[in-house]
Amino acid sequence: MLTDRGRALLRWRDPAGRVTAPPGLPDMGELLLSRRGEASGVALARALVAALEEADEARRLAFLETLADRFGPDPEAVSRAMQAVARDPASVEAVEALHVAAEPRRQELFRRLNLAPGGTAALVRMREELLRHLKDSPALRRVDSDFAHLFASWFNRGFLVLRHIDWNTPAAILEKIIRYEAVHAIQNWDDLRNRLQPTDRRCYGFFHPQLVDEPLIFVEVALTREIPDTVAPLLDLDRKPIDAAEATTAVFYSISNTQKGLAGVSFGNFLIKQVVEELKSELHQIQTFVTLSPVPGFAAWLAREREGGKMLPAEVLAALTLLDQPGWHVDKDAARALREPLLAAAAIYFLRARDGKGRAVDPVARFHLGNGACLERLNVLGDVSANGLKQSHGLMVNYLYDPDRIEANHEAFAERTEIAASDAVRRHLPATTAMKEMP
Amino acid sequence: MLTDRGRALLRWRDPAGRVTAPPGLPDMGELLLSRRGEASGVALARALVAALEEADEARRLAFLETLADRFGPDPEAVSRAMQAVARDPASVEAVEALHVAAEPRRQELFRRLNLAPGGTAALVRMREELLRHLKDSPALRRVDSDFAHLFASWFNRGFLVLRHIDWNTPAAILEKIIRYEAVHAIQNWDDLRNRLQPTDRRCYGFFHPQLVDEPLIFVEVALTREIPDTVAPLLDLDRKPIDAAEATTAVFYSISNTQKGLAGVSFGNFLIKQVVEELKSELHQIQTFVTLSPVPGFAAWLAREREGGKMLPAEVLAALTLLDQPGWHVDKDAARALREPLLAAAAIYFLRARDGKGRAVDPVARFHLGNGACLERLNVLGDVSANGLKQSHGLMVNYLYDPDRIEANHEAFAERTEIAASDAVRRHLPATTAMKEMP
Amino acid sequence: MLTDRGRALLRWRDPAGRVTAPPGLPDMGELLLSRRGEASGVALARALVAALEEADEARRLAFLETLADRFGPDPEAVSRAMQAVARDPASVEAVEALHVAAEPRRQELFRRLNLAPGGTAALVRMREELLRHLKDSPALRRVDSDFAHLFASWFNRGFLVLRHIDWNTPAAILEKIIRYEAVHAIQNWDDLRNRLQPTDRRCYGFFHPQLVDEPLIFVEVALTREIPDTVAPLLDLDRKPIDAAEATTAVFYSISNTQKGLAGVSFGNFLIKQVVEELKSELHQIQTFVTLSPVPGFAAWLAREREGGKMLPAEVLAALTLLDQPGWHVDKDAARALREPLLAAAAIYFLRARDGKGRAVDPVARFHLGNGACLERLNVLGDVSANGLKQSHGLMVNYLYDPDRIEANHEAFAERTEIAASDAVRRHLPATTAMKEMP
Amino acid sequence: MLTDRGRALLRWRDPAGRVTAPPGLPDMGELLLSRRGEASGVALARALVAALEEADEARRLAFLETLADRFGPDPEAVSRAMQAVARDPASVEAVEALHVAAEPRRQELFRRLNLAPGGTAALVRMREELLRHLKDSPALRRVDSDFAHLFASWFNRGFLVLRHIDWNTPAAILEKIIRYEAVHAIQNWDDLRNRLQPTDRRCYGFFHPQLVDEPLIFVEVALTREIPDTVAPLLDLDRKPIDAAEATTAVFYSISNTQKGLAGVSFGNFLIKQVVEELKSELHQIQTFVTLSPVPGFAAWLAREREGGKMLPAEVLAALTLLDQPGWHVDKDAARALREPLLAAAAIYFLRARDGKGRAVDPVARFHLGNGACLERLNVLGDVSANGLKQSHGLMVNYLYDPDRIEANHEAFAERTEIAASDAVRRHLPATTAMKEMP
Repeated sequence: MLTDRGRALLRWRDPAGRVTAPPGLPDMGELLLSRRGEASGVALARALVAALEEADEARRLAFLETLADRFGPDPEAVSRAMQAVARDPASVEAVEALHVAAEPRRQELFRRLNLAPGGTAALVRMREELLRHLKDSPALRRVDSDFAHLFASWFNRGFLVLRHIDWNTPAAILEKIIRYEAVHAIQNWDDLRNRLQPTDRRCYGFFHPQLVDEPLIFVEVALTREIPDTVAPLLDLDRKPIDAAEATTAVFYSISNTQKGLAGVSFGNFLIKQVVEELKSELHQIQTFVTLSPVPGFAAWLAREREGGKMLPAEVLAALTLLDQPGWHVDKDAARALREPLLAAAAIYFLRARDGKGRAVDPVARFHLGNGACLERLNVLGDVSANGLKQSHGLMVNYLYDPDRIEANHEAFAERTEIAASDAVRRHLPATTAMKEMP
Repeated sequence: MLTDRGRALLRWRDPAGRVTAPPGLPDMGELLLSRRGEASGVALARALVAALEEADEARRLAFLETLADRFGPDPEAVSRAMQAVARDPASVEAVEALHVAAEPRRQELFRRLNLAPGGTAALVRMREELLRHLKDSPALRRVDSDFAHLFASWFNRGFLVLRHIDWNTPAAILEKIIRYEAVHAIQNWDDLRNRLQPTDRRCYGFFHPQLVDEPLIFVEVALTREIPDTVAPLLDLDRKPIDAAEATTAVFYSISNTQKGLAGVSFGNFLIKQVVEELKSELHQIQTFVTLSPVPGFAAWLAREREGGKMLPAEVLAALTLLDQPGWHVDKDAARALREPLLAAAAIYFLRARDGKGRAVDPVARFHLGNGACLERLNVLGDVSANGLKQSHGLMVNYLYDPDRIEANHEAFAERTEIAASDAVRRHLPATTAMKEMP
Repeated sequence: MLTDRGRALLRWRDPAGRVTAPPGLPDMGELLLSRRGEASGVALARALVAALEEADEARRLAFLETLADRFGPDPEAVSRAMQAVARDPASVEAVEALHVAAEPRRQELFRRLNLAPGGTAALVRMREELLRHLKDSPALRRVDSDFAHLFASWFNRGFLVLRHIDWNTPAAILEKIIRYEAVHAIQNWDDLRNRLQPTDRRCYGFFHPQLVDEPLIFVEVALTREIPDTVAPLLDLDRKPIDAAEATTAVFYSISNTQKGLAGVSFGNFLIKQVVEELKSELHQIQTFVTLSPVPGFAAWLAREREGGKMLPAEVLAALTLLDQPGWHVDKDAARALREPLLAAAAIYFLRARDGKGRAVDPVARFHLGNGACLERLNVLGDVSANGLKQSHGLMVNYLYDPDRIEANHEAFAERTEIAASDAVRRHLPATTAMKEMP
Repeated sequence: MLTDRGRALLRWRDPAGRVTAPPGLPDMGELLLSRRGEASGVALARALVAALEEADEARRLAFLETLADRFGPDPEAVSRAMQAVARDPASVEAVEALHVAAEPRRQELFRRLNLAPGGTAALVRMREELLRHLKDSPALRRVDSDFAHLFASWFNRGFLVLRHIDWNTPAAILEKIIRYEAVHAIQNWDDLRNRLQPTDRRCYGFFHPQLVDEPLIFVEVALTREIPDTVAPLLDLDRKPIDAAEATTAVFYSISNTQKGLAGVSFGNFLIKQVVEELKSELHQIQTFVTLSPVPGFAAWLAREREGGKMLPAEVLAALTLLDQPGWHVDKDAARALREPLLAAAAIYFLRARDGKGRAVDPVARFHLGNGACLERLNVLGDVSANGLKQSHGLMVNYLYDPDRIEANHEAFAERTEIAASDAVRRHLPATTAMKEMP
């Protein structure tokens, strides 16, 4: 690769064909936007992509900052277009022209960079790097907006391809599944095989034609005979697979985004719904589609409540002190005593608690409820790994995807922050709290 | 297909899940843009695509007109955003917000329509239909702008795939090659095979991952030992192929766009240059890349000149009267006598004549010269088919793609309308005319 | 190709690496069987394949005759092995050694020829050529036996791949479907598309991994709502397809072997049965699997009977004189009058007539009945094309493949020449004849 | 699988279609050879394959023994055929008939078993099992002969497909590379990637179309700038790859057969020669093709010689006592002192020593020399792993594949056991021994 890139740079020529030193990154950007970019767009884009990879991080950051500064919309053109609208506010054409004039020049630059082989991947990496610098260099947010706008269009679900990932998938893709799995880390290739090869396991991912070996998002699915309440048996290397034809339930036990550079482009919603369709058409007898999900915000919220919150009844608070006893989860009596208080606290956490913006506190809950799923069940001691205990005192939950109710759930959640939850979950609300719910 | 579409429409449900009559097309569009569209984007997009195909042309036209009318930018949002810019003209953020506010709602509608399986193809067909109505319904031009903007981004060369089209290509694609060939019509499958199967013939096309069996553009190439001056021997069913390893010249003798709905998105330039790269790396000994091209504007221009133009010297005009003699091209004497006058007229046509906008008259010339090619040779009696005689009195020309000069040629042409031409072509300019060229 | 072959021959070297003239074909064969063939099998095989293609037909025939003569088993080895068996008739090992000694050297030669790229195809062509000479050169039958033995092993059904042939199949394969169709000639590519593309049409073929673009056999299938009695509507370019989901019946209306060089290797039986499996698993509602078949031996047999046979009752014979009236099939009265006599004659033809070897007379009947099918229905005026009238006075028949009865039908036919036929067919037997059937 | 097999067995029906208990394995074999096997070959073969997998090892062994006993040639047919030959010894047809009569019925049984999906794989497994029992049950050798004969024909190189195995190969195949690597064990997936992914590493295997995910044999290749003398640097996880374009040498450092059931079918010779072709056409600058090979028989032979052999000169014997000093290979002085004696002993081992059958002693040497390679270099301390020290006192060697000399080398080796060796190797022969070589 180095050699190729090197060659591309050495090959830099002025329009008369003379080999010269390549210009700086911003000048290459300007050239790509110029008339010369029309004739030699692919070559110039390739050279700029190569130069970016060759550059060190400081120069790349400087380039991003230049993009923020100097590649916005042309101020004069904007001003002229605004005057035209002011003159004739009813002119649709004038408003249209204003829209065009106000488009940052970055967008066309990115479209032209995309002409290079590997251009899409390079742009995704550029944004990933940008996001790391965003805090220290807030002006980059403008550049980020343009990335976000373009990527939402380019990575439109219509351009994505659903692929089944299994033990016949190329290793170059599988090693990325290992690397990107974000929920229940994959220990090694045996662990991976255990999630892909048995007849009661499935994995699906969205791919984009331009990012050949890169899954954008993937979901791991277990086919089971009932809704599971703990994750360990699902991942057990020694478990005995069941025949897929005997499964009644599909469990989405892990879903992972892979490309930080595509942050904000929404894939998960589409992926889950399409996998539901796939499984329904392959295995008619599967009727239940649920997740087995972590509750990453629960422990932190509970700590705040125990320190001085007002949402938990006194008797629940009192009972929860047992949580401070190390190893409570392996102490049968302690675990039994904590069960009801934890369920009560969890019910309040999901159904009553709101964050500063009035949203459900739990990010995973926001994702699934926003997709139109329903909170189906709370599982005490669902994940007793160190991480599971730390983030949620071992709590896991199931979200149910019921195709007939997804749309109504989504609307109620999006417009009125109404949480779709089963009666079983609601029953865990302490009586006093439950009252408040009545209209 | 009918059944599927039918089912999709019958399946229409209100948010509570009750089956109802589907709404009208514009209302479906509004729904797709609404909150409900977020939860059920794929299903709603699929329903709207189905409804569009089900509708008759009048209803589809009405829908397009509604798009022009009611799916532009939100006027109030634009007005607010303009006021913000007016208050603080230096605010980059305000200009950015203005850009967003001025985006026609159609663009988001099209992006959401694209969620449907087959959505991209449906949108391309929509624009093809729109273009047919544009003359009678000029307001549609606004909608067309949004199509053009989105398609330029979606069909960016970075997303296209170059494929070799040969006798092992699926018939479903090959029949489209037959249908779309726009330069030298393909008579039947034998004619097609003769252009694809021999070792000295090649065909390449650009494909988009979402339009599986649809070449967007394709070019037919003959590998030869010299630059050809007539097209008939290239297409002869009985010709004897040469070994590809003996060829020195690649002749692009036909290039055809296929999708009217993608008008204005430029593919040809990229295609020719990439095919040059492909051939260079496969067959090192090929050094010359030329076209054998028609001259579609020549006969009409010449008729105008003969009726009262001022560009042709009198002796040339006099000699050209022989053209009025039917069958001159099979009369050796007549053909010989016409040779020089035709070449002179052609040289003037290419090097001197300009249309009302100051551009080169010939559309094919504008394409190749705009790509940076050079006018290499004029060929009298290059195409004596009925069509060839009618449009150009049999004249064909070769444009040369010399990688080392493409960029300079393009810039000179784009900025100063300078025509790159070989000395051989320039020599055909009548002396008096040639003078004028001197600075 | 010529060049490559030429080069291969020019490259001939003696073991010391000196370039020499290549030896004659038989000597090359001996070399390939020698020690040198062990070290350089691929190269020698390639050279012999090239030399065979370069040779003219006379030299190739001479080579085949040499194979018959000089590449049989080694007589001395056979004699020694026989003596060993004679000494110890109970020795299994001695008999085994005799089997090995009696193997013609040709078989190993063919196995080594198969080392060459394209060797399998070359051997199949060799046998095709051999079969053309067999009549004039009966000694070639020995060579043919070895081909037949090897091909039966190499083209074992376990090595064949069933492929769906449709409008997405490469043209290089489709043109062979056009060329090889043996039952109802395919007129052109439109006719072909009409048999492949509609949702109620299917085509399947067996392929061998070594003969990449060559279907070995293929069958064309129509999906219908009832058992058809004439072929013309099935092939009609203007017919309206039905939805595959509405079909109840799969009609095998054409089955064609393609490789004369594989004569005697049986594919059709396997193909039909596998296609039945495929269709059953794809379209559960299809319950009836029939053919619509020609009756190629009927007219000739009937002519013999009318000239002096004894199988037809006098009244049937008398009625059949109407057949001599030209155009009877378009004369409603004549056609009506002929209907019953033709059915009676056909019933006798299928159920009673036997050829010199005691077999059913009709070759198509022998194929389907031998596969275990049952003669389901006789269709007068089933094929009124010139060929249909000529070979069978327009008669077509349906053979029914009923998976539950295939095995029993096959055994009864193979062991006792019992013809499986429906009651409907049997009822057409004239009363007197029907009597004879009683035990 | 269990379920499927179970179903297949339960589905057993008599010819009248009644469900019955399936017969024993030998009876199923007889059925498959009978008339019923003609009609329902695929179904019967499938049932027998399933029954074999269901059976325990004892029943399978009994079946193999029955095959040896009862599925040989028909003795009466053999006897009749022998009488016919005796009557007319000159009759080619009689000898041919004898060959057919003497064919064991097992061969046809195996061909029919191959009709089942997965039949080929099942037969390969059957033979693998047979080979394990061969010592205890010598009659099985007859069955083995038939397997060997059929497999040599079915796995003819002409039917094999060469595939490049790299990091894009499906994991299901790669895990078999890990499992089957027989020379330098692959520790884990990182080790595997290190052998497949770098630009200066290649791996190729032969596959058979019927054994989809099973490489039959594969070779690992390193591209280097010189002939390597030790294996450790080649396998080092931290080594720095070179650009393939800079390599001059291709090193075959590991070649592994995978299918015990295909023992005796020769693949390695073809594989190495084809890979040489592949690499030559991909990387023109590579001129040297060598192995880096173990010497598995050296230590054992040397021990015998030291105990009482006569091939080694006394001074060499004396010097070699240092080998008994533990850790000599890490003691610089000892290693230096042993260098020449080891080289002398190795030269004698390769060039002089012969086993009881007069063959070269070393099995790896027999393989490469039999392929026509030449012993190029002896490398002391080439493999100082525990295994390397144990089997060959650390010795490794390079065999050179020189396309121009392969054929002559092979013939000399096969006919006269002449060992092709470089002068460098020959020079290590002690003077007295070297003398003996003179004619």
